[in-house]
Amino acid sequence: MKKLLTLAVAVLCMISAAFAQQALGSRANVKSPEIHPDNSVTFRLKAPEAKKVVVTGDFTTTAGEDIRNVEMKLNADNIWEASVPALRSELYSYNFLVDGVKICDPANVYINRDVASVMNIFIINGDRGDIYKVNDVPHGSVRRAWYNSPTLGIDRRVTIYTPAGYESGKDKYPVLYLLHGAGGDEEAWITLGRTSQILDNLIAQGKCKPMIVVMTNGNAGQQAAPGESAAGMTQPAMGMGGGARPKASFEQSFGDVIKYVESNYRVIAKKEARAVAGLSMGGGHSFNISRTYPKTFDYVGLFSAAARIGDNVEIQESLKAQRDNGFKLYWIACGNTDFLYKANLDFMKYLDSINFPYKYRESDGGHIWRNWRIYLSEFAPMLFQ
Amino acid sequence: MKKLLTLAVAVLCMISAAFAQQALGSRANVKSPEIHPDNSVTFRLKAPEAKKVVVTGDFTTTAGEDIRNVEMKLNADNIWEASVPALRSELYSYNFLVDGVKICDPANVYINRDVASVMNIFIINGDRGDIYKVNDVPHGSVRRAWYNSPTLGIDRRVTIYTPAGYESGKDKYPVLYLLHGAGGDEEAWITLGRTSQILDNLIAQGKCKPMIVVMTNGNAGQQAAPGESAAGMTQPAMGMGGGARPKASFEQSFGDVIKYVESNYRVIAKKEARAVAGLSMGGGHSFNISRTYPKTFDYVGLFSAAARIGDNVEIQESLKAQRDNGFKLYWIACGNTDFLYKANLDFMKYLDSINFPYKYRESDGGHIWRNWRIYLSEFAPMLFQ
Repeated sequence: MKKLLTLAVAVLCMISAAFAQQALGSRANVKSPEIHPDNSVTFRLKAPEAKKVVVTGDFTTTAGEDIRNVEMKLNADNIWEASVPALRSELYSYNFLVDGVKICDPANVYINRDVASVMNIFIINGDRGDIYKVNDVPHGSVRRAWYNSPTLGIDRRVTIYTPAGYESGKDKYPVLYLLHGAGGDEEAWITLGRTSQILDNLIAQGKCKPMIVVMTNGNAGQQAAPGESAAGMTQPAMGMGGGARPKASFEQSFGDVIKYVESNYRVIAKKEARAVAGLSMGGGHSFNISRTYPKTFDYVGLFSAAARIGDNVEIQESLKAQRDNGFKLYWIACGNTDFLYKANLDFMKYLDSINFPYKYRESDGGHIWRNWRIYLSEFAPMLFQ
Repeated sequence: MKKLLTLAVAVLCMISAAFAQQALGSRANVKSPEIHPDNSVTFRLKAPEAKKVVVTGDFTTTAGEDIRNVEMKLNADNIWEASVPALRSELYSYNFLVDGVKICDPANVYINRDVASVMNIFIINGDRGDIYKVNDVPHGSVRRAWYNSPTLGIDRRVTIYTPAGYESGKDKYPVLYLLHGAGGDEEAWITLGRTSQILDNLIAQGKCKPMIVVMTNGNAGQQAAPGESAAGMTQPAMGMGGGARPKASFEQSFGDVIKYVESNYRVIAKKEARAVAGLSMGGGHSFNISRTYPKTFDYVGLFSAAARIGDNVEIQESLKAQRDNGFKLYWIACGNTDFLYKANLDFMKYLDSINFPYKYRESDGGHIWRNWRIYLSEFAPMLFQ
């Protein structure tokens, strides 16, 4: 019986494989990127008519050199080729510039979208990259779900990570609400941010408590990521999502998110089991949400964010109330070349002036996903301990 | 308070928007594809150095003409441009060939992967396209989860659609197991097949019963789609998934899938509430699964599949047993230019010879996703009635 089944399948497969070109286009026949054993990387493109081809990416070598553009050269097989020296363990993104036209590598199907930019990715294993790649560990589930927001008067899409064991178990879990920046949406953290891989790996290593991660859409005028709502396949753009003028701010609607999560998931509905963190605009959201829902979150993370306080008395008073109510961690992280670096220093100066306790993590680099993945990898282990 | 929050958010957004280029590449500044009110479509590409640019797609005009390649011309603004006449309502895919290099349209972020081919998509509304696009209707959830397969000795990834109302309700639902073809994986039906959109729309229109749809990975040697397992970001290829030699066939492991679903989801665990269907290799799987688990499924769908029976007595006997056990629907669908068309006719000749009841749906076209979306749209409404 087993033999026959196997045979039947094998025959079907062979037939399908032989003829599947009916459904497929032609495929690239070069290997790119090729990651060598020493973590140097070779990129290749078959484009015999092109005059100039450049690989443009965000590479950092083990020697600490940043490489942005490398001109490719035609090799003996008439294939454009360029290599970069051994790279640090990291998730990298790149495109090709073919006579000035920015394209994805036709030989690499792994692609991320950041606002309206589409780029290839690859991972260099060994250190940080090992946290971002899929390893042979128990995996959580990721769902795209919809909740109703009475405050905004619309249904809204949300991405939710539940840790391994959630589906078949009965335990209740703490919740991290993880918010994206301007131009992002509910797809940003799970794709660009590698949230499920980071959480799977840190939980498996015992470095991080099993938790639910709720990745909202922070654009109050938008129901869902581009292409995922009735707004259709519009070209993504920066700003508040191009939806109708919202009835309220995202922060004002945040109670709807909490209510949905705490009604539909097995969560520990207590301050000590709730965290809110976000990057850039999402850091601003986390700042506002944590101070205006002051007895709700014991953990707050502001990644490359910056809150402007100025002489705004209401903000000042809400922060003092938040300080007096107490919390376990207020974590501020910023890169030293981020355009919000100075604003973060000013923000912390104000926090110091009112004895508002916080921890500060300064990294290299600017307003980039590399930093936000690092911040999540460092922030998550501090939660719910 | 509301004003202040809004102001704070607005300031953060403006800052983020102004400087977000730190994290972003440059964006295309042409509109492509532009869908005109009459459903003609214009494609554009800025590639001033290129010698020849062609748009290659799977277009069908309202007049019934199939268009595969259209040479683009430089317009007055030095942008390559081509238009196709009014298209039938459908989901279309396309690429650009720039001096022979197949690329995605840099101005269109909507992309599907089919095995190792990456292509842009767009939808022409009005008829079939309205079933494939996201409409303003209640939306189901889609989760990527993992189950253990003792038969195969590995954890495996699965995509599961639960209809609107599932998460917050208590009802039990029937289940459609929906299987992909060779070269596909648990991402195929949800992306190329538009399963969640088709189900959301048909359920909202009252044409289809709310149901759970389980989209497995049918490559027994593979844990998950390329990039989603510890096998890493390998280049996808046709065949059984490139994993280790499996311990058993996918069909032999199918009991593990049913057990996982029926243990972890609110399902009606009865023959009359189970359907199994698949395309190509997944149709072969459905054929084998439905006859070897004979009292399990009341609904079977074979899309562009073909079972070879020949003089295999065991297959013949299992089909007679399946016939005698009874079922509600055995639905065979094939395109009249499919390479398996003749094999399907032969298969049905055999079924006729043993008085095995089935329904046959013949469509235009070949072994292509357009047909499989149509078949799903027609098959789902017949289930669980």
